[in-house]
Amino acid sequence: MSLVEDESPRLREVMAELAPLAGSAHVVGITGPPGVGKSTATSALVAALRRREQRVAVLAIDPSSPFSGGALLGDRIRMSEHATDPGVFIRSMASRGHLGGLAWTTPQALRVLDASGFDVVLVETVGVGQNEVEVAGAADTVVVLLAPGMGDSVQAAKAGILEVGDLYVVNKADRDGASALRQDLRTMLSLVERPEGAWRPPVLLTTAPGGEGIDDMVAALDEHLAWAQGSGALHRRRLGRARTEVEAVALTALRRRWAGVSDRDRLDMLAEEVVGGHLDPYAAADRLLEEVD
Amino acid sequence: MSLVEDESPRLREVMAELAPLAGSAHVVGITGPPGVGKSTATSALVAALRRREQRVAVLAIDPSSPFSGGALLGDRIRMSEHATDPGVFIRSMASRGHLGGLAWTTPQALRVLDASGFDVVLVETVGVGQNEVEVAGAADTVVVLLAPGMGDSVQAAKAGILEVGDLYVVNKADRDGASALRQDLRTMLSLVERPEGAWRPPVLLTTAPGGEGIDDMVAALDEHLAWAQGSGALHRRRLGRARTEVEAVALTALRRRWAGVSDRDRLDMLAEEVVGGHLDPYAAADRLLEEVD
Repeated sequence: MSLVEDESPRLREVMAELAPLAGSAHVVGITGPPGVGKSTATSALVAALRRREQRVAVLAIDPSSPFSGGALLGDRIRMSEHATDPGVFIRSMASRGHLGGLAWTTPQALRVLDASGFDVVLVETVGVGQNEVEVAGAADTVVVLLAPGMGDSVQAAKAGILEVGDLYVVNKADRDGASALRQDLRTMLSLVERPEGAWRPPVLLTTAPGGEGIDDMVAALDEHLAWAQGSGALHRRRLGRARTEVEAVALTALRRRWAGVSDRDRLDMLAEEVVGGHLDPYAAADRLLEEVD
Repeated sequence: MSLVEDESPRLREVMAELAPLAGSAHVVGITGPPGVGKSTATSALVAALRRREQRVAVLAIDPSSPFSGGALLGDRIRMSEHATDPGVFIRSMASRGHLGGLAWTTPQALRVLDASGFDVVLVETVGVGQNEVEVAGAADTVVVLLAPGMGDSVQAAKAGILEVGDLYVVNKADRDGASALRQDLRTMLSLVERPEGAWRPPVLLTTAPGGEGIDDMVAALDEHLAWAQGSGALHRRRLGRARTEVEAVALTALRRRWAGVSDRDRLDMLAEEVVGGHLDPYAAADRLLEEVD
């Protein structure tokens, strides 16, 4: 995992060894707006999976914003009840802002955890950016967490999460408005057009610190996995993930070639022409690609 | 601008025509955590620049999160006082989550606005992700906005914004704690090691709705621009921006090649091998790059 985070050149060998071992973990993405209790719910889910004696890895993707402050540390602390359990592996990884960074590291981290024999890998995205949602959306099963009393939750839901989730969970179900939010979500989900035989995402209620509803959540995860295996959806998701990963590795390799080893590389020289107004960025990009050929 | 947003193939011709025209606008990035009054401050800044009869473009980068809800619309509405001024152009653009999307569109939008004869182009990043900070950080002059009473502002500042700003503005200066926050920032900034002759970022106080302190901000922007022109820093920043842009255009072109035109492209076939465990992502990436050659 450290090799992945460091984008180490040694990853190449490691990945070659791991290639035949991956593919048996159930990768579950957990996403949702801040304040819905993602970490607490993840922690309760880990506890439930451990009761079934499954080995669980948690990969928490931090948005790595310079403005995010101390909240994330708090999230990590909430997971600490599992810190000494050898059947649980918890790792935070920063999402990378630079081109290709996010796409590069997360699927490789998932690959390592998968090949290491974990039965379930939970990817918890702390951020709410499109990047984080895409990471969670690339999982085998995607859980969208919401909570009542967040005002815009339902409106936000309308804005684009209705296609993302395989499972919707209204957390903090002991609060006012939980049933209403559940009903709203069900109504909205029923309006999404889905092909014949498609998975119909259930909407569950949980109260994470007490663990109420978590067993239902585990059952729903199992059910979705079984459906995805039978329907071919699982294979399609994994293809999509591998596609992103291969592309990101290839682009990273290309960027390294372009960066070169000299003080003043080809890309810098082209950028100079662009700043001077002698070349437009498309013509410059063409020249850069000619170098690759 | 619509061609940029649509990633239109016609951009190529447009950019070729615009190439000699760009380079005279002062590109100012405005960033900071949510709730500090970025839009109000930007609006007050636009008013001040208009009093000098400068033509101003505002490019607001939205994080395009499915969870971001209604706040962004509010931001846009706060700018509406300038909506009918022909010397002001305001455009919201979504930051793109997919690889290269953000890097691709923002510098090109800046190029179009610059070549269109605006004297100042303000890039306001609504989000707090690393991407958004990088966009603002690529400007000729970077303004970091903070506000008192946000608890973690100073802590957040410690976490990584001290290297980003050319100008720090404590907005909502009529609130308790503004002077203390200013003093904290000054102290922290004085601890950042900077080479001889480097720009020393000032820390200003503003109360954006009333416009207090905005003239000082305009003066500081002028001062930084003059310093950057004289020191070569402006040219280096613009080189960096062009470099990112050329690279993003080249990567986008490559991705289009890989996507191909057939139903089942090469990347899909390689992803299939990876999912099957017959190939690791590095070996697959190598094969993909062989195709390019």
